[in-house]
Amino acid sequence: MSGSAPGLSSVLVVGTGLIGTSIALALREHGVTVKLADQDAGAVRLARELGAGEEWAPGGEPVDLAVVAVPPQFVAQWLLDLQKTDAARFYTDVASVKALPIAQAVQLGCDMTSYVAGHPLAGRERSGPAAARADVFLGRPWAYCPGAETSAQAVQAVLSLIELCGGNAVEVDPVAHDEAVALVSHAPHVAASAVAARLAEASDTALGLAGPGVRDVTRVAGGDPGLWAVILSGNARPVAEVLEAVATDLAVAAAALRAVSVDDTMAIDRVTELLKRGNAGQSRIPGKHGGPPRAYAVVQALVGDRPGELARLFQVARDAGVNIEDVRLEHAPGLPLGAAELSVQPEAAEVLAEALRAHGWHVP
Amino acid sequence: MSGSAPGLSSVLVVGTGLIGTSIALALREHGVTVKLADQDAGAVRLARELGAGEEWAPGGEPVDLAVVAVPPQFVAQWLLDLQKTDAARFYTDVASVKALPIAQAVQLGCDMTSYVAGHPLAGRERSGPAAARADVFLGRPWAYCPGAETSAQAVQAVLSLIELCGGNAVEVDPVAHDEAVALVSHAPHVAASAVAARLAEASDTALGLAGPGVRDVTRVAGGDPGLWAVILSGNARPVAEVLEAVATDLAVAAAALRAVSVDDTMAIDRVTELLKRGNAGQSRIPGKHGGPPRAYAVVQALVGDRPGELARLFQVARDAGVNIEDVRLEHAPGLPLGAAELSVQPEAAEVLAEALRAHGWHVP
Repeated sequence: MSGSAPGLSSVLVVGTGLIGTSIALALREHGVTVKLADQDAGAVRLARELGAGEEWAPGGEPVDLAVVAVPPQFVAQWLLDLQKTDAARFYTDVASVKALPIAQAVQLGCDMTSYVAGHPLAGRERSGPAAARADVFLGRPWAYCPGAETSAQAVQAVLSLIELCGGNAVEVDPVAHDEAVALVSHAPHVAASAVAARLAEASDTALGLAGPGVRDVTRVAGGDPGLWAVILSGNARPVAEVLEAVATDLAVAAAALRAVSVDDTMAIDRVTELLKRGNAGQSRIPGKHGGPPRAYAVVQALVGDRPGELARLFQVARDAGVNIEDVRLEHAPGLPLGAAELSVQPEAAEVLAEALRAHGWHVP
Repeated sequence: MSGSAPGLSSVLVVGTGLIGTSIALALREHGVTVKLADQDAGAVRLARELGAGEEWAPGGEPVDLAVVAVPPQFVAQWLLDLQKTDAARFYTDVASVKALPIAQAVQLGCDMTSYVAGHPLAGRERSGPAAARADVFLGRPWAYCPGAETSAQAVQAVLSLIELCGGNAVEVDPVAHDEAVALVSHAPHVAASAVAARLAEASDTALGLAGPGVRDVTRVAGGDPGLWAVILSGNARPVAEVLEAVATDLAVAAAALRAVSVDDTMAIDRVTELLKRGNAGQSRIPGKHGGPPRAYAVVQALVGDRPGELARLFQVARDAGVNIEDVRLEHAPGLPLGAAELSVQPEAAEVLAEALRAHGWHVP
């Protein structure tokens, strides 16, 4: 436990779900006094047992910052209630959409000088306090949306919160925020679900031919439908706009392929055009360390499915002075071995390959 | 080099691209005599230099099996030409669609007793002979489509080929094959491209909020548009059918979200229904070792971005007798550390977590 950050010695977390409890745990690691509240007494108790703080008793001294970690549609009412009782000097929230809670807060007559809307981009496939982790925000973007009325001290309090949690503060307009998460999170989730939905009634033969590509495309479709329905409801119009554009592109591609199937071979150009735009968009997604995508060299090695095989491999890399930037194991279905794909700086690739070969690995 | 397999001592590979050259390399490892042909003399030379075999001289003794590894629309003509000169006793191909080349072969009057259409499911994001690897088929499905006229010896020759390459033979009707790959490969590729295409014109702010979810959904969209246009052209109708269904689901979801945005809150049920079907489909995709998806326990540990950190971690796992089934490094953008997600048998999770903690790792 180190000392508390400047200006942030006590925090109230309202809503001890995954995100609220994770924030509380991160703050506790820095010695911040954390108070916990949730309409579910069991959730508060669990969070407390995890070391996230103590149960909040309304009516005491105002805390420095209240973090409203409840679903988007309940943020404004909580903000109003907390402000009425002077629960905190400053307020923020963590909802996955920003225009809706801000508009509702204005409508309810909340004090907008002490409130800064926020959104840590730290989703996990699990939910609830038991899945909480203090490190879940490390290096992740944390959007915050100061308005024209917001006081400088309120902004400073939220920046302190983000810093204590290890997040990467990104100032963004609330409408731009919602359009952005529609593009990079909400609409891709629905599209992945639509692709996965086709497999629900597919033959076992078809599933038997599935490979890593479709696994990647559909991985997020395993998320909780109820949780995602709430997220999508809160960002309905921006997500609808993206999905309409995706649906149109797919309908155009389907029509072009229908034309190809009756010998209009030139129609494939309309599909190629979409694939090229896909290339362009995919290449813009930032890679490791948040910078522009950087091309690592990939060294592949066949590894057996035995304890210690990868340990020996990484030991050889260490002895050769090579830092492995990323590793992915591709297991061969039905066989006790797999290919390890080791991402390294391009100049280190040959060094690593030589070292692995010298120690008996098959490096193609 | 071990001895040749029963009944397969010489093979002709026509088309020394990625798949053809990989097959040749796999056969060479078993001592099979391999002849190479390609309309591009440079590709044959490169394959030869990689140790894939010797250049084919037409007019010699028939080989046991000819593997036609050319794009789908050229398979039947090559088959006819090879059969006219008695180049081989049996014939197969490796094209990613099966109904088209079979129909064209019948139409051209090819001998259908000696030909078995085939398709190894071993795509890679790269192409050309330089990317070839003998191990690319290990444990992967390899579809083959015997017809009513196919001789038992022709089937045996293709099964020997699949065995020598380490593939997992899957007998399938050609039309069912094409519908299957439309579902599990071709349509997901186009859908991923359509999602990625939305990012081509997106703001830098939006891209800055991108996380691992959209990276997974769009990864395959980085594939070569020209190559994929050929693949999609050859399977146009089945892919169009899947894309039409996906586009309809997305249009329905978009319309439901539009209704939600004007306060028809019940409309979200139509989105939830799609998300649930997505859950059901996603859960059917086979995991590691080709079996039904098995739940591994995931142990997470924070690792520094330094040479040897993962080596030490795997060493600890080995010393604890724990086999790491899969590993995924999630690097924290902007920070020199990341979270390693280690998949292990559920009963080994606590053993590994304890061992890592005892050696100073932060295991949440």
